[in-house]
Amino acid sequence: MDQQKLAVLRHSTAHLLAHAVSELYPDTLLTIGPPTEQGFFYDFLPTKNFKEEDLALLESRMHEISVRNLKLEHKEIPKEKAREIFKGNPFKLELIDGIEGDTVGIASQGDFYDLCRGGHVDNTGEIKHFILTGISGSYWRADRSGQPLQRISGTSFFSERDLKDYIQLQEDLVKYDHRRLGKQLDLFSFHEEGPGFPFFHPKGKLIFNKLVSFVRSLLDKSGYQEISTPVVLSDELWQRSGHYAHYKENMYFTNIDERSFAIKPMNCPGAILLYKERPRSYRELPLRLSEFGLVHRHELSGVLHGLLRVRAFTQDDAHIFCTPDQIESEIADLLKLVLEVLRKFGFTDIQIALSTRPEKAMGDVALWNTAEAALKKALDGAKISYEINSGDGAFYGPKIDFRVKDSMGRLWQLSTIQLDFFQPENFDLAYINNEGKKDRPVIIHRAIYGSIERFMAILLEHHKGNLPFFIAPEQVRVISISDDQLEYAQQVCAKLTEAGVRAKIDESSDTLSAKIKVAQLAKVPWMLVLGKREMAENKVTLRHLDGKQESFTLDEIVEKAQLLNR
Amino acid sequence: MDQQKLAVLRHSTAHLLAHAVSELYPDTLLTIGPPTEQGFFYDFLPTKNFKEEDLALLESRMHEISVRNLKLEHKEIPKEKAREIFKGNPFKLELIDGIEGDTVGIASQGDFYDLCRGGHVDNTGEIKHFILTGISGSYWRADRSGQPLQRISGTSFFSERDLKDYIQLQEDLVKYDHRRLGKQLDLFSFHEEGPGFPFFHPKGKLIFNKLVSFVRSLLDKSGYQEISTPVVLSDELWQRSGHYAHYKENMYFTNIDERSFAIKPMNCPGAILLYKERPRSYRELPLRLSEFGLVHRHELSGVLHGLLRVRAFTQDDAHIFCTPDQIESEIADLLKLVLEVLRKFGFTDIQIALSTRPEKAMGDVALWNTAEAALKKALDGAKISYEINSGDGAFYGPKIDFRVKDSMGRLWQLSTIQLDFFQPENFDLAYINNEGKKDRPVIIHRAIYGSIERFMAILLEHHKGNLPFFIAPEQVRVISISDDQLEYAQQVCAKLTEAGVRAKIDESSDTLSAKIKVAQLAKVPWMLVLGKREMAENKVTLRHLDGKQESFTLDEIVEKAQLLNR
Repeated sequence: MDQQKLAVLRHSTAHLLAHAVSELYPDTLLTIGPPTEQGFFYDFLPTKNFKEEDLALLESRMHEISVRNLKLEHKEIPKEKAREIFKGNPFKLELIDGIEGDTVGIASQGDFYDLCRGGHVDNTGEIKHFILTGISGSYWRADRSGQPLQRISGTSFFSERDLKDYIQLQEDLVKYDHRRLGKQLDLFSFHEEGPGFPFFHPKGKLIFNKLVSFVRSLLDKSGYQEISTPVVLSDELWQRSGHYAHYKENMYFTNIDERSFAIKPMNCPGAILLYKERPRSYRELPLRLSEFGLVHRHELSGVLHGLLRVRAFTQDDAHIFCTPDQIESEIADLLKLVLEVLRKFGFTDIQIALSTRPEKAMGDVALWNTAEAALKKALDGAKISYEINSGDGAFYGPKIDFRVKDSMGRLWQLSTIQLDFFQPENFDLAYINNEGKKDRPVIIHRAIYGSIERFMAILLEHHKGNLPFFIAPEQVRVISISDDQLEYAQQVCAKLTEAGVRAKIDESSDTLSAKIKVAQLAKVPWMLVLGKREMAENKVTLRHLDGKQESFTLDEIVEKAQLLNR
Repeated sequence: MDQQKLAVLRHSTAHLLAHAVSELYPDTLLTIGPPTEQGFFYDFLPTKNFKEEDLALLESRMHEISVRNLKLEHKEIPKEKAREIFKGNPFKLELIDGIEGDTVGIASQGDFYDLCRGGHVDNTGEIKHFILTGISGSYWRADRSGQPLQRISGTSFFSERDLKDYIQLQEDLVKYDHRRLGKQLDLFSFHEEGPGFPFFHPKGKLIFNKLVSFVRSLLDKSGYQEISTPVVLSDELWQRSGHYAHYKENMYFTNIDERSFAIKPMNCPGAILLYKERPRSYRELPLRLSEFGLVHRHELSGVLHGLLRVRAFTQDDAHIFCTPDQIESEIADLLKLVLEVLRKFGFTDIQIALSTRPEKAMGDVALWNTAEAALKKALDGAKISYEINSGDGAFYGPKIDFRVKDSMGRLWQLSTIQLDFFQPENFDLAYINNEGKKDRPVIIHRAIYGSIERFMAILLEHHKGNLPFFIAPEQVRVISISDDQLEYAQQVCAKLTEAGVRAKIDESSDTLSAKIKVAQLAKVPWMLVLGKREMAENKVTLRHLDGKQESFTLDEIVEKAQLLNR
């Protein structure tokens, strides 16, 4: 869709809204009504506050005006004349004062007119597929100490189909909000005793553990070595690392024996201490130290948002200590690893960006050049498209970011690969090279999930709660049609459990359709329905969440489940 | 060995030491010289401080006096006379004043005599197998503000064999101290930036993870559900739980948004909040919630001791919410589980104690009686011997403790099963019974390892670093006799790795004996030695750490390893 055309339509819809408001509530003062990324809004100063129930009335008046097929006209008039027209509206007068030149634009449709720099559809009849989405508080010129206003928001499309899709998406966003799914599926909760600190219920903890063990098994094969470092470390360390100077506001502190300690917001300083624990040889490099590290970072209470924005989370962190020569092959391996993980979880639309040396960078330019060339070579070698954000790297090194687009069209920043030339200098890290001399390693910080908690939230929303089989807390619900098959059901369930499949029997005396309904609500990916025929033939009927059914022998279904779990 | 006879011998050895001191350093003032659990000591006020190198001289003089075969005599003399004898020794005079009655005991051997209440061997010739173990500072009457003294410690046995065993044990205690093994095997370290907070190196973290996954797999089969609760929770919670009133000194605190929070010292309050998150039905009970929970508890810096005494550790915790009727079967299951785990790790000498209702107990006496009867029935049913510590339970419930004796004779308290009638009341916990009415559950707190960190330390010392195969960080070292077998070695290693065995090839060009030496130092339980013959026959020679060798086909060795890993 042409975003610019859409903006014109939406801005015109804002005028249509203002027109309807002027007709229904003539004493309302109009201010501004721009298009936005997703739609438009118009800020008003009404004589009596708008309520949600007024929106329907406004919408229907907007439709009325639309079918009047009013022509939209735009002309430039002298400021003097404009001041006369808007003399009762101090907001418009202020806007007029702020416009350069001697004239201002006026848009009109029928007897309605508004101050406007232009960009409209030709006729109100073109504005058909719109919706008003809500009322919120705002301030004149977004100044919180200034005049409070009321904002009516909405959006508008060129087709009924697009509008319907939009409405469906809005419903889905509410319905599949991970906080709602978390409650519905009994995955996690938050409590007043620990704002921003998640409590994982059994099923949520199972997903969490599977996320850890899946990546852990890949890391085992990829030459990583797992470590763990303390949650609490002394202020001196954070002063040296620079977190104290640049990140203190987001850290929590505690006192032990009259000495100040921080609850770690990052895992790097701990990993660095471990690296420095003994002399390292070039034979040990690349040294890939992974850590599933619990970090605490302050967030304002207003922005806490389920598992997406918490105050404590677990990073699937790793620090790779290597020589500059090893950067390229490490990055090449990492690209494969990151894409394997993201794709495994059903993220297929992956956007990659390389951020390069900023103006104010530390460290040797030659090292930057070597590193950036290595990153590009690795990216090119992987034959994946990526964009370059020139000058957008951190002051201490270039980085590669991975964003995924989810099933509801939202982009999420997930994995990061960050080179670091600063901490090796700062902590005076060394290795003994093959000539017996000291050399400085580079650190590659990298996380695939990023925050496991946040990844879980995104995963839940992306799949609308229907998690992929291998990560579903309950994978199989065994359902007997009558009690006659209960023993067979137990046999099936035991065989699956034996094979490492997370299976359960519905032992209730409910009807088949009730049992199916319960399993659907719990979003169990496989229902195995067992009736007389299945039992006689030593088979199962696999019913998927979408209602599709297939028949398998017991051995086949176990093999199929194991294959998906691998 | 008769402990009382041994105490008499050791007390006599203390006299022998004092006798030697009087001969060699006649101006030294003697004070007291009692036997102890492991030996004896004697506290002196010398004119010039004793040094470690003086001990050999003292020992040899003690042997000289021993072979003099002096008869030991004991008699009661009037205090008056005793005061005259000890007039130059203010310590002895003070002791005399402190003795009831008109007479005091005097022990003599040859021309040496000492104040003594009696209990000696008959002749110095009986005292042959002794050793002086060290010099330390002490205070007269253990009063730190009083007169500093010097303590010489030692021990004594009836046979040369016992003394040799003792000396061997002392050497082993130093050699197999887990802090030393931790460094030697590169398992963990401590850093000044986090006193008492362990850093786990790759191999140590691997052991840690295996300890977790081993218990986790047993819990999966035992109907447990794993949860996780935050590390940081608000003061109000700890006030309600009682930790604030009774445990505050051992807790660390932090501030968030001007509200005080504690870093959790225990997992129970978090689990209780999770239980309370929604109404619970009797159908959910027993609800077995397990948590591998990281807790922080303050310890004085002087008592920190490797992984045995830390300030942060992970409990393999669980809280079982059940009805009083369910206590017996839960305890029966728990006894099996605890013993299975402890035995799996090679602890065979397990001592069990049941502690019952103390004087000051809370809660219903009937509930206590039911619970204690259930615990006894479960213990009796398990056909294991246990002792009853009458009145030794916590005020909130009876408990069962498990202590293990390690290979060096030390007892360690490990697992605990603690019933709790208090927190269910305190937090107003409820479940809906089968009549639709609210009822109060009981909580069973239990840990098997206790602290995973501490368990790892005890495990390392118990096995003297030679961890059981299934928990060894590196299980198999594949060693080729010459480079001709390197390809075969890779094939063997790949096959083992494929089967989930932690195997590595020694790819150095060292000699066979050097390679074996290196693997022995790393305490790798299996060395697979591959020569011409092995390669020709598709076999391996398994060499154990003790030097024993066996021959297997490749398939056999993989199967054998998998069996041990199961």
